[in-house]
Amino acid sequence: MLGLGKTPEQIAAIAKEILGSGSTLLVTRATQEAFEAVRVIAPSAVYHDVARLISLRQQDVIPGKGSIVVAAAGTADLPVAEEAAITAELMGNCVERLYDVGVAGLHRLLAERERLAAARAIVVVAGMEGALPSVVSGLVSAPVIAVPTSVGYGASFGGIAALLGMLNSCASGVSVVNIDNGFGAGYTASLINHI
Amino acid sequence: MLGLGKTPEQIAAIAKEILGSGSTLLVTRATQEAFEAVRVIAPSAVYHDVARLISLRQQDVIPGKGSIVVAAAGTADLPVAEEAAITAELMGNCVERLYDVGVAGLHRLLAERERLAAARAIVVVAGMEGALPSVVSGLVSAPVIAVPTSVGYGASFGGIAALLGMLNSCASGVSVVNIDNGFGAGYTASLINHI
Amino acid sequence: MLGLGKTPEQIAAIAKEILGSGSTLLVTRATQEAFEAVRVIAPSAVYHDVARLISLRQQDVIPGKGSIVVAAAGTADLPVAEEAAITAELMGNCVERLYDVGVAGLHRLLAERERLAAARAIVVVAGMEGALPSVVSGLVSAPVIAVPTSVGYGASFGGIAALLGMLNSCASGVSVVNIDNGFGAGYTASLINHI
Amino acid sequence: MLGLGKTPEQIAAIAKEILGSGSTLLVTRATQEAFEAVRVIAPSAVYHDVARLISLRQQDVIPGKGSIVVAAAGTADLPVAEEAAITAELMGNCVERLYDVGVAGLHRLLAERERLAAARAIVVVAGMEGALPSVVSGLVSAPVIAVPTSVGYGASFGGIAALLGMLNSCASGVSVVNIDNGFGAGYTASLINHI
Amino acid sequence: MLGLGKTPEQIAAIAKEILGSGSTLLVTRATQEAFEAVRVIAPSAVYHDVARLISLRQQDVIPGKGSIVVAAAGTADLPVAEEAAITAELMGNCVERLYDVGVAGLHRLLAERERLAAARAIVVVAGMEGALPSVVSGLVSAPVIAVPTSVGYGASFGGIAALLGMLNSCASGVSVVNIDNGFGAGYTASLINHI
Amino acid sequence: MLGLGKTPEQIAAIAKEILGSGSTLLVTRATQEAFEAVRVIAPSAVYHDVARLISLRQQDVIPGKGSIVVAAAGTADLPVAEEAAITAELMGNCVERLYDVGVAGLHRLLAERERLAAARAIVVVAGMEGALPSVVSGLVSAPVIAVPTSVGYGASFGGIAALLGMLNSCASGVSVVNIDNGFGAGYTASLINHI
Amino acid sequence: MLGLGKTPEQIAAIAKEILGSGSTLLVTRATQEAFEAVRVIAPSAVYHDVARLISLRQQDVIPGKGSIVVAAAGTADLPVAEEAAITAELMGNCVERLYDVGVAGLHRLLAERERLAAARAIVVVAGMEGALPSVVSGLVSAPVIAVPTSVGYGASFGGIAALLGMLNSCASGVSVVNIDNGFGAGYTASLINHI
Amino acid sequence: MLGLGKTPEQIAAIAKEILGSGSTLLVTRATQEAFEAVRVIAPSAVYHDVARLISLRQQDVIPGKGSIVVAAAGTADLPVAEEAAITAELMGNCVERLYDVGVAGLHRLLAERERLAAARAIVVVAGMEGALPSVVSGLVSAPVIAVPTSVGYGASFGGIAALLGMLNSCASGVSVVNIDNGFGAGYTASLINHI
Repeated sequence: MLGLGKTPEQIAAIAKEILGSGSTLLVTRATQEAFEAVRVIAPSAVYHDVARLISLRQQDVIPGKGSIVVAAAGTADLPVAEEAAITAELMGNCVERLYDVGVAGLHRLLAERERLAAARAIVVVAGMEGALPSVVSGLVSAPVIAVPTSVGYGASFGGIAALLGMLNSCASGVSVVNIDNGFGAGYTASLINHI
Repeated sequence: MLGLGKTPEQIAAIAKEILGSGSTLLVTRATQEAFEAVRVIAPSAVYHDVARLISLRQQDVIPGKGSIVVAAAGTADLPVAEEAAITAELMGNCVERLYDVGVAGLHRLLAERERLAAARAIVVVAGMEGALPSVVSGLVSAPVIAVPTSVGYGASFGGIAALLGMLNSCASGVSVVNIDNGFGAGYTASLINHI
Repeated sequence: MLGLGKTPEQIAAIAKEILGSGSTLLVTRATQEAFEAVRVIAPSAVYHDVARLISLRQQDVIPGKGSIVVAAAGTADLPVAEEAAITAELMGNCVERLYDVGVAGLHRLLAERERLAAARAIVVVAGMEGALPSVVSGLVSAPVIAVPTSVGYGASFGGIAALLGMLNSCASGVSVVNIDNGFGAGYTASLINHI
Repeated sequence: MLGLGKTPEQIAAIAKEILGSGSTLLVTRATQEAFEAVRVIAPSAVYHDVARLISLRQQDVIPGKGSIVVAAAGTADLPVAEEAAITAELMGNCVERLYDVGVAGLHRLLAERERLAAARAIVVVAGMEGALPSVVSGLVSAPVIAVPTSVGYGASFGGIAALLGMLNSCASGVSVVNIDNGFGAGYTASLINHI
Repeated sequence: MLGLGKTPEQIAAIAKEILGSGSTLLVTRATQEAFEAVRVIAPSAVYHDVARLISLRQQDVIPGKGSIVVAAAGTADLPVAEEAAITAELMGNCVERLYDVGVAGLHRLLAERERLAAARAIVVVAGMEGALPSVVSGLVSAPVIAVPTSVGYGASFGGIAALLGMLNSCASGVSVVNIDNGFGAGYTASLINHI
Repeated sequence: MLGLGKTPEQIAAIAKEILGSGSTLLVTRATQEAFEAVRVIAPSAVYHDVARLISLRQQDVIPGKGSIVVAAAGTADLPVAEEAAITAELMGNCVERLYDVGVAGLHRLLAERERLAAARAIVVVAGMEGALPSVVSGLVSAPVIAVPTSVGYGASFGGIAALLGMLNSCASGVSVVNIDNGFGAGYTASLINHI
Repeated sequence: MLGLGKTPEQIAAIAKEILGSGSTLLVTRATQEAFEAVRVIAPSAVYHDVARLISLRQQDVIPGKGSIVVAAAGTADLPVAEEAAITAELMGNCVERLYDVGVAGLHRLLAERERLAAARAIVVVAGMEGALPSVVSGLVSAPVIAVPTSVGYGASFGGIAALLGMLNSCASGVSVVNIDNGFGAGYTASLINHI
Repeated sequence: MLGLGKTPEQIAAIAKEILGSGSTLLVTRATQEAFEAVRVIAPSAVYHDVARLISLRQQDVIPGKGSIVVAAAGTADLPVAEEAAITAELMGNCVERLYDVGVAGLHRLLAERERLAAARAIVVVAGMEGALPSVVSGLVSAPVIAVPTSVGYGASFGGIAALLGMLNSCASGVSVVNIDNGFGAGYTASLINHI
């Protein structure tokens, strides 16, 4: 459930319904206030503060077949990267995090080539010019799910620059989700890892 | 190789280099003139006129593990859908085509539910409002790769309306490639089908 | 009267003038503060908090001839949907609400086919990709008035994605009002229901 | 059927299918070449050159209950206005045309007040600043369907200026269709006139 | 001096310099805090709260030759209209205000025809669809300076809809200033009235 | 009359009507073909090929009171500048042309200071960054009517860069007309020169 | 390090790492809170409040070979101009500041011609129409690095107008950095001054 | 001189004037027709067909102090890259060309590290996502002048994606010129190489 645009009361009410049906709960873009409201009806719910997620796993999940890498360029991209990583973990996947691997310092990225090559699906999170997915995709043969972030200022236009960069990637195996949509990227990577 | 923005001579020269290395040739957005130039250096090359592709398979390809569905909403979307389908076929995949299944006539789409459910990856091609991927993704658990097309007029803005619709899909397993990028969608679907 | 961009004092002053002329009062986008100011001069005014409307009916209204359906995709779209519904009710129409019928869960929508078919005019409210009006219009022969909402994030651009999706609808009987303009949609539906 | 983006052969093939099912044929944005192709399979088809429409009525249509007015501001808006008018006529409506009634010469518009007031639905077609629907809607109580046209230059941006003007109309009963979408406006007006 | 983007201290410092040179002071977009800071160094400065202007006239101004009309469509446009009117008054012009004359209620505007016809220059302030300048210019032969305002919501895009409407006016004697730039319009009207 | 978007036949028909009423004829954006059609019904009509105007003066015009300067930055801006200049001349004004005075070569502009200072109204035509009106307005006290042109490439976006530059001018007496609208600028300058 | 989008704790942690490696610290877009957090781990760090920079020089820098001029048009542009100037100074350059030299008052700029001509690289900071770099570049032969600022309102669109103006400069030696990117401009100017 | 938007006759006339003054001639965006016209008045002029340039060197140029590298990602970027390279050569610089070094094949770029490190200024030309300048700038300490090209399709929007990517570069020494402006980049690189 997307927490954005809903009041804490609405979130708690929908959470109650989801939990009542026996499903796993996952609320994205959740504020601390929303968590307080959910905790009243579900005391064992967990709040992931960097990722701004509320979760409560209720079902046994089928484990993914391999690993998923979540790569991110900078510190300010971490909330989105963590949203992707935790989503994938909740869905039963083993997740490797590769953070601080921006394109202006290629050596750090190149040093991680082996971990990248071992993944069945790769989520790449980047703001500003959004060039990281093209570079990563050139190094591996796994599908790359690119997540533009709203990190940047001026002509980044809230993530449009990164979004356009990723849609125009000169590498072939890159597909893209909405700006800041870590959840969708983690979810799609999990679908691929469960095939 | 993207044929757009290259002269027939440049395309033929690059084709020669690719073929000399023993690789399979695939030229997208190729004109009939480009094909004439390529045929001089590679007489067995094939031209797919709806998809505007030149191809010449030279390598044995590893077959994909299941099938890929390519779904499209309307007649004007066929060039892009065929670009995706033929790309996937060249890469060793078994491809099912579901054409003429727009959202304003849901019964045709619902009648194909089983074929959709059997796919390991689904490419959905749509112009205008670009709503088809959301509806398809709600019916299946395979990853959906959405391809917006430049089909439409006025406020479709050359495919922007469809692109934005797909990026904002309320369904979770949808990722998106560039406007009219059938090749990228077919390629990504093939990567997924080969995992 | 549109409450947006007016101070509580200005709203109260204009409300006084409207009520003095014997007309029905309807203030959209009204804050609680505006309501307090209006209540001073019109103690029987009502505040609809989900819809953010102030109303006070003074005239006998001519009843509409049939019913109007207001359909909405998600919880976050409710303020706009309620603005449409209450506007239509104030103008003498019988309104049916169909909420939580998004395109990613078609079965809920298809289950309401009969209620949709019975309406003389249908208001469809949706954010994100804005695909619901196309699907609804494909199921009925009544005119559909589509209302894009600013619900979404990233590439929804405050409702532009939904607006463009609706303008490019592949269904023929869809017309569109401004982003979040529930009032205009309810008003137009009422005009149609009074013909 | 939208003729745009389809070859004459594709249009003729789809036309054959439509006519075979006994339905009325209507092709919008049709070129003279498309008409030649259609005439081969349907010799009694008619080409409306200002409106760029191909039509062939096969069914008895239920007559609309009142009249529809199609109003347009300038000479260059006529193709879109005619597309709306002929669509409505084919669907069984009596259509009144009010052309050359731009907002910079109000007296011509005001002189037609009575004909406007008599309509059950009004289609207003305008390019450039797109102000005509607001002015017309202020004069009548029928629903107004506004059609922005791509007529203009510079900052009209192919009809965006007119589209935005109409979406932001300060008059309440105005809804809008896509730029140059005369067909959709005529179709919607006919739905309203048949209620 | 534009107050926007300057601190109260910076505004007071620049005001001191202007006043020291014997010139008239005019600060636009000034907050109450800026006024407090200016009053310390210039106790006779005046704050116009609707227009958000600080002024202190120091020079004898040459009176304009005729009158300037400032027309506005709605209550929310008044801050910009007053900025234009007071600017023109400070520069020595006689200003007539015509407020609440929107295009959806033409009779109020038509009733003021004589006052409009008497002006040497007309400033027209409007938000939303920005249609008023076209209609006014069609009624008079004086130059019209159009000021789009950021009044509106959704697809008004902070005044872009009104700006584009005015730039595309079908009337010939209309020129346009920046969104919300009442000062520039009043200043230009004064230049014209002093020729 | 704007020739754009009208056929030669339509232009000739409207021209005939205008001339029949005794008015002066002025057709902007007219092709050579349109002129041939007009010449048949009005043999004394004149074609101005740089400005792409057809004209035929029929009435005695009241002469303007002073002179109008039309300034332009570069060779590619001349069609628009000439459209402004000839329009003003047809309306009875004495026009001075100052061409080739771009901001990157200030000395040429500064050398013309006296001619600028003598004008009652100044039309400034510029493409690319559109900086010339700001610089000119800083040198004079006459009102400046700025005309952005579609001259440029890449990020000039068909004149948007120049348009935005002019709307954001830091000089106070600048107002703006549509991209390439030399006619509107010449017309407005003439209104000012006839006050 | 860009401070934007990072918490004070994150900034302090990264600062500690940078300082531990012996490098010079520079944090842009830093709030007072971020400075408090940094001061705990680095008591000799300095806060430049106009420029919103935290700095602590640890290395001997190689002095630049000549001087760099930083020119700015208005008071509201100073934060960005100071960000550029202090960045260049920290990198060992001698910096001359030329503030308050807008294009609407050319004489102030022309009076500084000699200082401009003496620079090896010139940073020009401007908001609104962004015309200053074109004018400066026409006066000198040094490379000009243009910085658009988000200063302005309405159609300045947060700096887009200035950015487009600078990209479309009719002067040849101008290159551009992101909106408000004083750091990047100062850094690039320093690279040039150290060649 | 920019050839775009000028007729062959206008180009020849200006060329004559330039050559008469003893200066070097350089016409960008020149068609073959323009060259024919120039050759009549200057038989020794040269046409560079990939770069679409006409040149005729008349002056002794001061040689640049080091070398300039022009790097480009793909075949379709060559016209712009050659425009930059030939411009720099005409201004007396030694130019190294590094073509076919896109970010999806990093090894080719990394293999050229030494040549990149030896340059005093680097021009980087790229379309699509425009990521190359960031990667190059991370490898060197020379200033990088980035040139976005209009190469791409769909969401590249004629070079906007590449332009935004470059403006948002996470590397510090990158500045940007207009889309396809090879001339401006070569010119600026030459200014730097002559310091």
